[in-house]
Amino acid sequence: MQFSPLIEELIQALRCLPGVGPKSAQRMALQLLERDRAAGKHLAEVLQLSMSEVGHCASCRTLTEEKLCRVCTSGRRNDQVLCIVETPADMLALEQSGVYDGRYFVLLGHLSPLEGIGPDDLGFDELVEKLRSQPVEEVILATNPTLEGETTAQYLLELLSSLPLKVTHLAQGIPLGGELEYLDGGTLSRAFSGRQGFASVKETNG
Amino acid sequence: MQFSPLIEELIQALRCLPGVGPKSAQRMALQLLERDRAAGKHLAEVLQLSMSEVGHCASCRTLTEEKLCRVCTSGRRNDQVLCIVETPADMLALEQSGVYDGRYFVLLGHLSPLEGIGPDDLGFDELVEKLRSQPVEEVILATNPTLEGETTAQYLLELLSSLPLKVTHLAQGIPLGGELEYLDGGTLSRAFSGRQGFASVKETNG
Ligand SMILES: [Zn+2]
Ligand SMILES: [Zn+2]
Repeated sequence: MQFSPLIEELIQALRCLPGVGPKSAQRMALQLLERDRAAGKHLAEVLQLSMSEVGHCASCRTLTEEKLCRVCTSGRRNDQVLCIVETPADMLALEQSGVYDGRYFVLLGHLSPLEGIGPDDLGFDELVEKLRSQPVEEVILATNPTLEGETTAQYLLELLSSLPLKVTHLAQGIPLGGELEYLDGGTLSRAFSGRQGFASVKETNG
Repeated sequence: MQFSPLIEELIQALRCLPGVGPKSAQRMALQLLERDRAAGKHLAEVLQLSMSEVGHCASCRTLTEEKLCRVCTSGRRNDQVLCIVETPADMLALEQSGVYDGRYFVLLGHLSPLEGIGPDDLGFDELVEKLRSQPVEEVILATNPTLEGETTAQYLLELLSSLPLKVTHLAQGIPLGGELEYLDGGTLSRAFSGRQGFASVKETNG
Protein backbone atom coordinates (compact mmCIF):
# COMPACT_ATOMS: atom_id res chain seq x y z
CA MET A 1 0.00 0.00 0.00
CA GLN A 2 1.04 3.56 -0.71
CA PHE A 3 -0.49 6.96 -0.31
CA SER A 4 -2.98 8.13 -2.94
CA PRO A 5 -1.52 8.74 -6.44
CA LEU A 6 -1.22 12.52 -6.14
CA ILE A 7 0.49 12.33 -2.73
CA GLU A 8 2.90 9.69 -4.09
CA GLU A 9 3.63 11.97 -7.04
CA LEU A 10 4.36 14.85 -4.66
CA ILE A 11 6.75 12.67 -2.64
CA GLN A 12 8.52 11.65 -5.85
CA ALA A 13 8.71 15.22 -7.13
CA LEU A 14 10.27 16.45 -3.87
CA ARG A 15 13.16 14.07 -4.43
CA CYS A 16 14.53 16.38 -7.14
CA LEU A 17 15.81 18.49 -4.23
CA PRO A 18 19.43 17.71 -3.29
CA GLY A 19 19.81 15.68 -0.11
CA VAL A 20 16.16 14.60 -0.02
CA GLY A 21 15.66 10.83 0.21
CA PRO A 22 12.37 8.88 0.27
CA LYS A 23 11.82 9.33 4.01
CA SER A 24 12.43 13.10 4.08
CA ALA A 25 10.34 13.56 0.94
CA GLN A 26 7.45 11.78 2.66
CA ARG A 27 7.88 13.88 5.80
CA MET A 28 7.93 17.08 3.72
CA ALA A 29 4.83 16.16 1.72
CA LEU A 30 2.82 15.18 4.81
CA GLN A 31 3.89 18.22 6.80
CA LEU A 32 2.77 20.58 4.03
CA LEU A 33 -0.51 18.68 3.50
CA GLU A 34 -1.34 18.32 7.18
CA ARG A 35 -0.16 21.63 8.55
CA ASP A 36 0.95 24.21 6.10
CA ARG A 37 -0.95 24.38 2.83
CA ALA A 38 -0.50 28.15 2.56
CA ALA A 39 3.29 27.77 2.70
CA GLY A 40 3.10 24.90 0.19
CA LYS A 41 1.07 27.03 -2.23
CA HIS A 42 3.45 29.94 -1.80
CA LEU A 43 6.42 27.66 -2.50
CA ALA A 44 4.70 26.34 -5.63
CA GLU A 45 4.17 29.87 -6.94
CA VAL A 46 7.68 31.14 -6.21
CA LEU A 47 9.17 27.96 -7.67
CA GLN A 48 7.13 28.27 -10.85
CA LEU A 49 8.08 31.93 -11.23
CA SER A 50 11.77 31.36 -10.47
CA MET A 51 12.14 28.48 -12.91
CA SER A 52 10.71 30.59 -15.74
CA GLU A 53 11.97 34.09 -14.87
CA VAL A 54 15.51 33.64 -13.52
CA GLY A 55 18.13 33.93 -16.25
CA HIS A 56 21.71 35.10 -16.29
CA CYS A 57 23.29 38.52 -15.90
CA ALA A 58 24.16 39.79 -19.39
CA SER A 59 27.54 40.93 -18.16
CA CYS A 60 28.86 38.46 -15.52
CA ARG A 61 26.58 35.44 -16.15
CA THR A 62 25.48 35.03 -12.54
CA LEU A 63 21.89 33.91 -11.89
CA THR A 64 19.38 36.77 -11.73
CA GLU A 65 15.89 37.60 -12.96
CA GLU A 66 17.15 41.07 -13.85
CA LYS A 67 19.01 41.97 -17.05
CA LEU A 68 22.12 42.89 -15.09
CA CYS A 69 22.94 41.82 -11.53
CA ARG A 70 23.45 44.19 -8.60
CA VAL A 71 27.24 43.95 -8.74
CA CYS A 72 27.38 44.71 -12.46
CA THR A 73 25.06 47.72 -12.16
CA SER A 74 26.83 49.15 -9.11
CA GLY A 75 28.84 52.30 -9.81
CA ARG A 76 31.05 51.70 -6.80
CA ARG A 77 33.09 48.73 -7.98
CA ASN A 78 36.67 48.64 -9.20
CA ASP A 79 36.54 48.06 -12.97
CA GLN A 80 40.21 47.16 -13.14
CA VAL A 81 39.91 43.82 -11.38
CA LEU A 82 37.85 40.86 -12.58
CA CYS A 83 37.39 37.77 -10.43
CA ILE A 84 36.47 34.51 -12.18
CA VAL A 85 34.43 32.07 -10.09
CA GLU A 86 32.70 28.79 -10.85
CA THR A 87 29.24 29.43 -9.42
CA PRO A 88 26.85 32.13 -8.19
CA ALA A 89 27.29 30.64 -4.69
CA ASP A 90 31.06 31.22 -4.89
CA MET A 91 30.41 34.81 -5.94
CA LEU A 92 28.05 35.29 -3.00
CA ALA A 93 30.61 33.84 -0.58
CA LEU A 94 33.24 36.34 -1.78
CA GLU A 95 30.74 39.20 -1.60
CA GLN A 96 29.75 38.26 1.94
CA SER A 97 33.38 38.14 3.02
CA GLY A 98 33.64 41.80 2.05
CA VAL A 99 37.26 41.45 0.87
CA TYR A 100 36.67 42.20 -2.79
CA ASP A 101 35.32 45.26 -4.59
CA GLY A 102 36.00 44.44 -8.26
CA ARG A 103 33.82 42.83 -10.92
CA TYR A 104 33.04 39.15 -11.55
CA PHE A 105 32.71 36.60 -14.28
CA VAL A 106 30.79 33.43 -13.40
CA LEU A 107 31.68 30.31 -15.38
CA LEU A 108 28.60 28.39 -14.21
CA GLY A 109 30.67 25.22 -13.91
CA HIS A 110 34.15 23.93 -14.61
CA LEU A 111 35.82 22.05 -17.46
CA SER A 112 34.79 18.41 -17.26
CA PRO A 113 35.34 16.17 -20.29
CA LEU A 114 33.48 13.38 -18.48
CA GLU A 115 30.34 15.49 -18.13
CA GLY A 116 30.85 16.94 -21.60
CA ILE A 117 31.48 20.46 -20.28
CA GLY A 118 33.92 22.33 -22.54
CA PRO A 119 35.12 25.94 -23.02
CA ASP A 120 31.98 26.84 -24.98
CA ASP A 121 29.75 26.02 -22.02
CA LEU A 122 31.73 28.24 -19.67
CA GLY A 123 31.56 31.41 -21.75
CA PHE A 124 35.29 31.68 -22.48
CA ASP A 125 34.69 33.61 -25.75
CA GLU A 126 32.45 36.03 -23.89
CA LEU A 127 35.15 36.40 -21.25
CA VAL A 128 37.93 37.19 -23.73
CA GLU A 129 35.64 39.65 -25.50
CA LYS A 130 34.89 41.32 -22.17
CA LEU A 131 38.58 41.56 -21.28
CA ARG A 132 39.40 43.09 -24.68
CA SER A 133 36.70 45.73 -24.46
CA GLN A 134 36.97 46.69 -20.79
CA PRO A 135 39.72 48.35 -18.73
CA VAL A 136 40.59 45.24 -16.71
CA GLU A 137 44.18 45.08 -15.47
CA GLU A 138 44.08 42.06 -13.17
CA VAL A 139 42.17 38.81 -13.46
CA ILE A 140 41.85 36.72 -10.29
CA LEU A 141 41.26 33.03 -10.99
CA ALA A 142 39.10 31.93 -8.06
CA THR A 143 38.02 28.50 -9.25
CA ASN A 144 37.82 25.82 -6.57
CA PRO A 145 40.96 23.97 -5.45
CA THR A 146 39.64 20.72 -6.92
CA LEU A 147 40.99 18.75 -9.87
CA GLU A 148 38.37 20.23 -12.23
CA GLY A 149 38.71 23.72 -10.80
CA GLU A 150 42.46 23.72 -11.23
CA THR A 151 42.29 22.28 -14.73
CA THR A 152 39.91 25.10 -15.58
CA ALA A 153 42.25 27.71 -14.05
CA GLN A 154 45.18 26.26 -15.99
CA TYR A 155 43.23 26.44 -19.24
CA LEU A 156 42.21 30.03 -18.52
CA LEU A 157 45.79 30.96 -17.65
CA GLU A 158 46.91 29.88 -21.13
CA LEU A 159 43.91 31.44 -22.82
CA LEU A 160 44.60 34.80 -21.17
CA SER A 161 48.39 34.71 -21.62
CA SER A 162 48.20 36.66 -24.87
CA LEU A 163 46.34 39.54 -23.24
CA PRO A 164 48.15 42.40 -21.44
CA LEU A 165 46.90 41.35 -18.01
CA LYS A 166 48.17 40.35 -14.60
CA VAL A 167 46.64 36.96 -13.73
CA THR A 168 46.58 35.89 -10.08
CA HIS A 169 44.97 33.16 -8.02
CA LEU A 170 43.83 32.92 -4.40
CA ALA A 171 46.48 31.86 -1.90
CA GLN A 172 46.25 28.23 -0.87
CA GLY A 173 47.15 26.97 2.57
CA ILE A 174 45.78 26.26 5.99
CA PRO A 175 42.29 27.72 6.55
CA LEU A 176 41.76 30.02 9.51
CA GLY A 177 40.89 27.90 12.53
CA GLY A 178 41.97 24.76 10.69
CA GLU A 179 43.73 22.25 12.90
CA LEU A 180 46.78 20.62 11.34
CA GLU A 181 45.73 17.27 12.70
CA TYR A 182 42.52 17.29 10.67
CA LEU A 183 43.80 18.76 7.41
CA ASP A 184 44.30 16.56 4.36
CA GLY A 185 47.76 15.91 2.99
CA GLY A 186 47.21 18.00 -0.13
CA THR A 187 46.40 21.12 1.87
CA LEU A 188 49.37 20.56 4.18
CA SER A 189 51.71 20.01 1.27
CA ARG A 190 50.60 23.24 -0.42
CA ALA A 191 50.90 25.12 2.86
CA PHE A 192 54.47 23.87 3.17
CA SER A 193 55.57 24.58 -0.37
CA GLY A 194 54.03 28.05 -0.19
CA ARG A 195 55.46 28.88 3.25
CA GLN A 196 56.43 32.48 3.91
CA GLY A 197 59.14 34.08 6.04
CA PHE A 198 57.87 36.41 8.79
CA ALA A 199 60.00 39.20 7.38
CA SER A 200 58.31 38.97 4.03
CA VAL A 201 54.86 39.94 5.23
CA LYS A 202 55.25 43.53 4.06
CA GLU A 203 56.68 42.49 0.74
CA THR A 204 53.78 40.06 0.21
CA ASN A 205 51.24 42.76 0.89
CA GLY A 206 53.10 45.34 -1.19
CA MET B 1 24.97 41.29 -0.71
CA GLN B 2 22.41 38.64 -1.44
CA PHE B 3 21.13 36.89 -4.53
CA SER B 4 18.56 38.71 -6.66
CA PRO B 5 15.12 39.26 -5.01
CA LEU B 6 13.36 36.34 -6.72
CA ILE B 7 16.16 33.89 -5.87
CA GLU B 8 16.15 35.10 -2.26
CA GLU B 9 12.37 34.60 -2.17
CA LEU B 10 12.79 31.05 -3.47
CA ILE B 11 15.39 30.28 -0.80
CA GLN B 12 13.05 31.65 1.88
CA ALA B 13 10.06 29.72 0.51
CA LEU B 14 12.00 26.42 0.55
CA ARG B 15 12.48 26.83 4.29
CA CYS B 16 8.85 25.86 4.85
CA LEU B 17 10.05 22.28 4.28
CA PRO B 18 10.86 20.43 7.51
CA GLY B 19 14.58 20.04 8.19
CA VAL B 20 15.61 22.67 5.63
CA GLY B 21 17.84 25.43 7.04
CA PRO B 22 19.26 28.47 5.23
CA LYS B 23 22.24 26.59 3.77
CA SER B 24 20.26 23.64 2.38
CA ALA B 25 17.58 25.99 1.04
CA GLN B 26 20.28 27.90 -0.86
CA ARG B 27 21.78 24.67 -2.20
CA MET B 28 18.32 23.48 -3.32
CA ALA B 29 17.44 26.74 -5.06
CA LEU B 30 20.77 26.95 -6.90
CA GLN B 31 20.74 23.31 -7.95
CA LEU B 32 17.28 23.65 -9.48
CA LEU B 33 18.17 26.95 -11.18
CA GLU B 34 21.56 25.83 -12.48
CA ARG B 35 20.85 22.24 -13.42
CA ASP B 36 17.30 21.08 -13.25
CA ARG B 37 14.65 23.58 -14.25
CA ALA B 38 12.39 20.88 -15.69
CA ALA B 39 12.30 19.07 -12.34
CA GLY B 40 11.72 22.39 -10.57
CA LYS B 41 8.77 23.20 -12.82
CA HIS B 42 7.35 19.73 -12.35
CA LEU B 43 7.66 20.07 -8.57
CA ALA B 44 5.90 23.46 -8.73
CA GLU B 45 2.98 21.95 -10.65
CA VAL B 46 2.57 18.86 -8.47
CA LEU B 47 2.86 20.98 -5.33
CA GLN B 48 0.24 23.43 -6.54
CA LEU B 49 -2.13 20.60 -7.49
CA SER B 50 -1.56 18.68 -4.25
CA MET B 51 -2.13 21.68 -2.01
CA SER B 52 -5.47 22.40 -3.68
CA GLU B 53 -6.73 18.90 -4.51
CA VAL B 54 -5.73 16.67 -1.60
CA GLY B 55 -8.45 16.48 1.03
CA HIS B 56 -9.50 13.84 3.52
CA CYS B 57 -11.15 10.46 3.08
CA ALA B 58 -14.83 10.89 3.92
CA SER B 59 -14.78 7.71 5.98
CA CYS B 60 -11.40 7.40 7.77
CA ARG B 61 -10.06 11.00 7.44
CA THR B 62 -6.69 10.03 5.97
CA LEU B 63 -5.18 12.33 3.35
CA THR B 64 -6.30 11.60 -0.22
CA GLU B 65 -7.42 13.47 -3.34
CA GLU B 66 -10.16 10.87 -3.78
CA LYS B 67 -13.50 10.91 -1.98
CA LEU B 68 -12.69 7.65 -0.21
CA CYS B 69 -9.22 6.16 0.28
CA ARG B 70 -8.07 2.79 -1.06
CA VAL B 71 -8.48 1.05 2.30
CA CYS B 72 -12.00 2.34 2.81
CA THR B 73 -13.11 1.32 -0.70
CA SER B 74 -11.51 -2.12 -0.52
CA GLY B 75 -13.98 -5.00 -0.22
CA ARG B 76 -11.38 -7.26 1.34
CA ARG B 77 -11.00 -5.67 4.75
CA ASN B 78 -12.35 -6.85 8.08
CA ASP B 79 -15.18 -4.48 9.02
CA GLN B 80 -15.24 -5.69 12.60
CA VAL B 81 -11.95 -4.13 13.65
CA LEU B 82 -11.16 -0.41 13.60
CA CYS B 83 -7.66 0.87 14.28
CA ILE B 84 -7.28 4.47 15.47
CA VAL B 85 -4.01 6.17 14.51
CA GLU B 86 -2.72 9.70 14.82
CA THR B 87 -1.50 10.34 11.27
CA PRO B 88 -1.64 9.10 7.66
CA ALA B 89 2.05 8.15 8.04
CA ASP B 90 1.14 5.87 11.00
CA MET B 91 -1.59 4.27 8.89
CA LEU B 92 0.89 3.69 6.05
CA ALA B 93 3.42 2.14 8.44
CA LEU B 94 0.80 -0.34 9.69
CA GLU B 95 -0.31 -1.11 6.13
CA GLN B 96 3.25 -1.73 5.03
CA SER B 97 3.86 -4.09 7.94
CA GLY B 98 1.05 -6.25 6.56
CA VAL B 99 -0.14 -7.31 10.02
CA TYR B 100 -3.54 -5.66 9.92
CA ASP B 101 -6.54 -6.13 7.66
CA GLY B 102 -9.25 -4.10 9.38
CA ARG B 103 -10.40 -0.51 8.87
CA TYR B 104 -8.88 2.74 10.15
CA PHE B 105 -9.77 6.04 11.69
CA VAL B 106 -7.14 8.78 11.44
CA LEU B 107 -7.23 11.46 14.14
CA LEU B 108 -4.88 13.81 12.23
CA GLY B 109 -3.18 14.75 15.48
CA HIS B 110 -3.43 14.20 19.20
CA LEU B 111 -4.99 16.05 22.12
CA SER B 112 -2.77 18.97 23.01
CA PRO B 113 -4.16 21.76 25.18
CA LEU B 114 -0.94 23.72 24.61
CA GLU B 115 -1.44 23.76 20.84
CA GLY B 116 -5.18 24.26 21.26
CA ILE B 117 -6.06 20.84 19.82
CA GLY B 118 -9.19 19.42 21.43
CA PRO B 119 -11.65 16.54 20.78
CA ASP B 120 -13.44 18.55 18.08
CA ASP B 121 -10.28 18.78 15.98
CA LEU B 122 -9.71 15.04 16.08
CA GLY B 123 -13.12 13.98 14.80
CA PHE B 124 -14.28 12.24 17.99
CA ASP B 125 -17.99 12.88 17.20
CA GLU B 126 -17.48 11.43 13.74
CA LEU B 127 -15.76 8.43 15.30
CA VAL B 128 -18.56 7.70 17.77
CA GLU B 129 -21.13 8.10 14.99
CA LYS B 130 -19.16 5.64 12.86
CA LEU B 131 -18.92 3.11 15.67
CA ARG B 132 -22.67 3.35 16.32
CA SER B 133 -23.62 2.82 12.69
CA GLN B 134 -21.09 0.16 11.69
CA PRO B 135 -20.54 -3.45 12.78
CA VAL B 136 -17.26 -2.77 14.62
CA GLU B 137 -16.51 -5.16 17.48
CA GLU B 138 -12.98 -4.20 18.40
CA VAL B 139 -11.26 -0.82 18.46
CA ILE B 140 -7.47 -0.80 18.56
CA LEU B 141 -6.01 2.39 20.00
CA ALA B 142 -2.74 2.80 18.13
CA THR B 143 -1.80 6.32 19.13
CA ASN B 144 1.91 6.93 19.72
CA PRO B 145 3.51 5.98 23.07
CA THR B 146 4.14 9.66 23.85
CA LEU B 147 2.58 11.80 26.56
CA GLU B 148 0.09 13.33 24.09
CA GLY B 149 -0.62 10.02 22.37
CA GLU B 150 -1.36 8.27 25.64
CA THR B 151 -3.50 11.13 26.92
CA THR B 152 -5.48 10.86 23.69
CA ALA B 153 -5.83 7.08 24.08
CA GLN B 154 -6.99 7.53 27.68
CA TYR B 155 -9.60 10.07 26.61
CA LEU B 156 -10.82 7.76 23.84
CA LEU B 157 -10.98 4.81 26.24
CA GLU B 158 -13.43 6.74 28.44
CA LEU B 159 -15.37 8.07 25.47
CA LEU B 160 -15.85 4.56 24.08
CA SER B 161 -16.57 2.88 27.43
CA SER B 162 -20.34 3.28 26.98
CA LEU B 163 -20.30 1.43 23.66
CA PRO B 164 -20.51 -2.38 23.41
CA LEU B 165 -16.94 -2.74 22.15
CA LYS B 166 -13.69 -4.41 23.00
CA VAL B 167 -10.97 -1.73 23.19
CA THR B 168 -7.32 -2.80 22.91
CA HIS B 169 -3.97 -1.13 22.46
CA LEU B 170 -0.68 -2.19 20.87
CA ALA B 171 1.69 -4.10 23.14
CA GLN B 172 4.54 -2.01 24.50
CA GLY B 173 8.01 -3.34 25.17
CA ILE B 174 11.38 -3.86 23.62
CA PRO B 175 11.45 -3.33 19.84
CA LEU B 176 12.73 -6.14 17.65
CA GLY B 177 16.50 -5.74 17.32
CA GLY B 178 16.51 -3.20 20.15
CA GLU B 179 19.54 -3.55 22.41
CA LEU B 180 18.80 -3.23 26.11
CA GLU B 181 21.85 -1.06 26.58
CA TYR B 182 20.48 1.64 24.27
CA LEU B 183 16.82 1.60 25.32
CA ASP B 184 15.41 4.39 27.44
CA GLY B 185 14.27 3.76 31.01
CA GLY B 186 10.59 4.18 30.16
CA THR B 187 10.66 1.43 27.54
CA LEU B 188 12.59 -0.89 29.86
CA SER B 189 10.21 -0.25 32.71
CA ARG B 190 7.16 -1.06 30.53
CA ALA B 191 8.88 -4.16 29.18
CA PHE B 192 9.44 -5.32 32.77
CA SER B 193 5.99 -4.58 34.09
CA GLY B 194 4.42 -6.27 31.06
CA ARG B 195 6.70 -9.31 31.16
CA GLN B 196 5.19 -12.62 30.08
CA GLY B 197 5.86 -16.23 31.11
CA PHE B 198 7.01 -18.52 28.30
CA ALA B 199 4.09 -20.82 29.02
CA SER B 200 1.61 -18.07 28.37
CA VAL B 201 2.46 -17.61 24.70
CA LYS B 202 -0.54 -19.65 23.57
CA GLU B 203 -2.86 -17.92 25.97
CA THR B 204 -1.65 -14.50 24.76
CA ASN B 205 -2.29 -15.41 21.17
CA GLY B 206 -5.65 -17.02 21.87
ZN1 LIG C 1 26.44 40.61 -13.27
ZN1 LIG D 1 -10.41 6.02 4.17
